[in-house]
Amino acid sequence: MPLVRIDALRAGTERLEALGRAVHDALVETIGIPPGDLFQVLTDHDGVRGMLRYGDFPDIRRDDDIVFVAITLRSGRTADQKRALYRRIADLAQSYAGTEPRNVFVFLTENESIDWSFGEGIAQYARP
Amino acid sequence: MPLVRIDALRAGTERLEALGRAVHDALVETIGIPPGDLFQVLTDHDGVRGMLRYGDFPDIRRDDDIVFVAITLRSGRTADQKRALYRRIADLAQSYAGTEPRNVFVFLTENESIDWSFGEGIAQYARP
Amino acid sequence: MPLVRIDALRAGTERLEALGRAVHDALVETIGIPPGDLFQVLTDHDGVRGMLRYGDFPDIRRDDDIVFVAITLRSGRTADQKRALYRRIADLAQSYAGTEPRNVFVFLTENESIDWSFGEGIAQYARP
Repeated sequence: MPLVRIDALRAGTERLEALGRAVHDALVETIGIPPGDLFQVLTDHDGVRGMLRYGDFPDIRRDDDIVFVAITLRSGRTADQKRALYRRIADLAQSYAGTEPRNVFVFLTENESIDWSFGEGIAQYARP
Repeated sequence: MPLVRIDALRAGTERLEALGRAVHDALVETIGIPPGDLFQVLTDHDGVRGMLRYGDFPDIRRDDDIVFVAITLRSGRTADQKRALYRRIADLAQSYAGTEPRNVFVFLTENESIDWSFGEGIAQYARP
Repeated sequence: MPLVRIDALRAGTERLEALGRAVHDALVETIGIPPGDLFQVLTDHDGVRGMLRYGDFPDIRRDDDIVFVAITLRSGRTADQKRALYRRIADLAQSYAGTEPRNVFVFLTENESIDWSFGEGIAQYARP
């Protein structure tokens, strides 16, 4: 169910794909997402037609290795689960893609069970 | 009001546009969106700078014809309206674009009336 | 914290970047975002692999200068703050990028403090 969008800047296909694996493995390990529950949109911006802009809030030095990770998921995860998720994404992004933790920006948006259709025109989490 | 993002993989301009029409017609028919209330961002990924990754959860066989449909809309639609919407998107995606229902992934994110400005710098749904 | 996505159509790098500055300055001026709290994904669609589709709801004449501005931010801003934000984005988009207010479409999605990790694998707004 989580739908993950990852935006990076001139990362190259291999590094982009490694970032996708990092986020997915972190979701599986920390908040119990099934391994096959993988849905990602990965975009590598060229700095011309696609740009990432960033500042240093809250006192973090970033550079063009920055990665934005947007995760949409059902509500219900605890604060501790979310903290574990952030920690693990940062760790695996470094292991798999060489991205330093300071460059890993993550945010979550929650919705409900009825808000997902995995295919076949059905709300699989909320059948009538 | 709904803002729709559609992400596909090497779909071609014509099929991408057909998917846009499928989602919009479904919104008009099932949840009462006015025909002119059309706002879509359609992206056709090339598999190199843009990638879609997917698994088989919950036991659905997908392939590279997969389409992700993200809809942001005001809260208030019932569960039955949402179910009808998913059904109709899947049907019309097949009719208009030849996309099989198993490859149509849809999710919704809700916000409120004050969260929309349709232009002119005004919150048209929530004037003071 | 706000994560801003801006989608435009054949805008060119300079105008796209000007739109980014318009939205950020408006956030700083109207809802108290720190200047360094800048996180944006800007995409210039070519009309072939990326398309924007739009109607005239609610009786606004738009053209291909249309800009979609999606802002994800923490809940807590008042209705008046949001109205001031829309007003200021429209004004600055015109000043900085020559975009007419009728072509500036903005919407907000809210989440909570625990839903943000600015880097280093930490939930900076919600430390344990």
